[in-house]
Amino acid sequence: MSELPAWLDEVAFDANGLIPAVAQDAASGRVLMIGWMSRESLALTRSTGLAHYWSRSRGRLWKKGEESGHLQRVQEIRLDCDEDVILLLIEQVGGIACHTGRESCFYRRLDDNGWVVVDSVRKAPDEIYRR
Amino acid sequence: MSELPAWLDEVAFDANGLIPAVAQDAASGRVLMIGWMSRESLALTRSTGLAHYWSRSRGRLWKKGEESGHLQRVQEIRLDCDEDVILLLIEQVGGIACHTGRESCFYRRLDDNGWVVVDSVRKAPDEIYRR
Repeated sequence: MSELPAWLDEVAFDANGLIPAVAQDAASGRVLMIGWMSRESLALTRSTGLAHYWSRSRGRLWKKGEESGHLQRVQEIRLDCDEDVILLLIEQVGGIACHTGRESCFYRRLDDNGWVVVDSVRKAPDEIYRR
Repeated sequence: MSELPAWLDEVAFDANGLIPAVAQDAASGRVLMIGWMSRESLALTRSTGLAHYWSRSRGRLWKKGEESGHLQRVQEIRLDCDEDVILLLIEQVGGIACHTGRESCFYRRLDDNGWVVVDSVRKAPDEIYRR
């Protein structure tokens, strides 16, 4: 992991070496998901133009869409005032960011009866993930 | 902390009892900030309609805008597919979410020269925070 670019040193990764990254659809403005990034995944996101995250559950680098084809083409990378959150403005290939087949992972809204699913499934997960 | 509502039990707080919350301006669509929420701050956000966070640096509950007046009126609370991120759709009072006096905390964009400030200050911080 030598030769990491200087701008990476301004990013405040947490004690686990990670930073949360918000992915926002540049066209619709919808917030699609949050992923966690390592230094390497952020560097790769920059160098390839495709969003890369760190999967905490699988403990490995993860290119968004590597299985589903639902890549995220990055248009802008932004950093917040505390240098500890990343915002990606992206084009969401396939219009689906969520593993449930929905556009956004934020498909439940709190109402008087609790969390209610308010967004529809665009493509069934078993059509997305052929194993 | 008794009598917390049932919907709170579906929210996956981390080992520190916190969950990240993205605040998005419901009108402009801009992502303004990420804050961290405790169970209590999320419950208060719901019951008061004003965004409450947990300040990790100060170690206390924090009503957004309590000093600056830049309250966040909550229109929607959403939960992601893993139940471990909150999205707030809000009206940002004063049009300023960032302590630097900018609309959004994400005012730096990565370009060929590194992180570049691309958003202007709407109000000087010393006019916002009178001590």
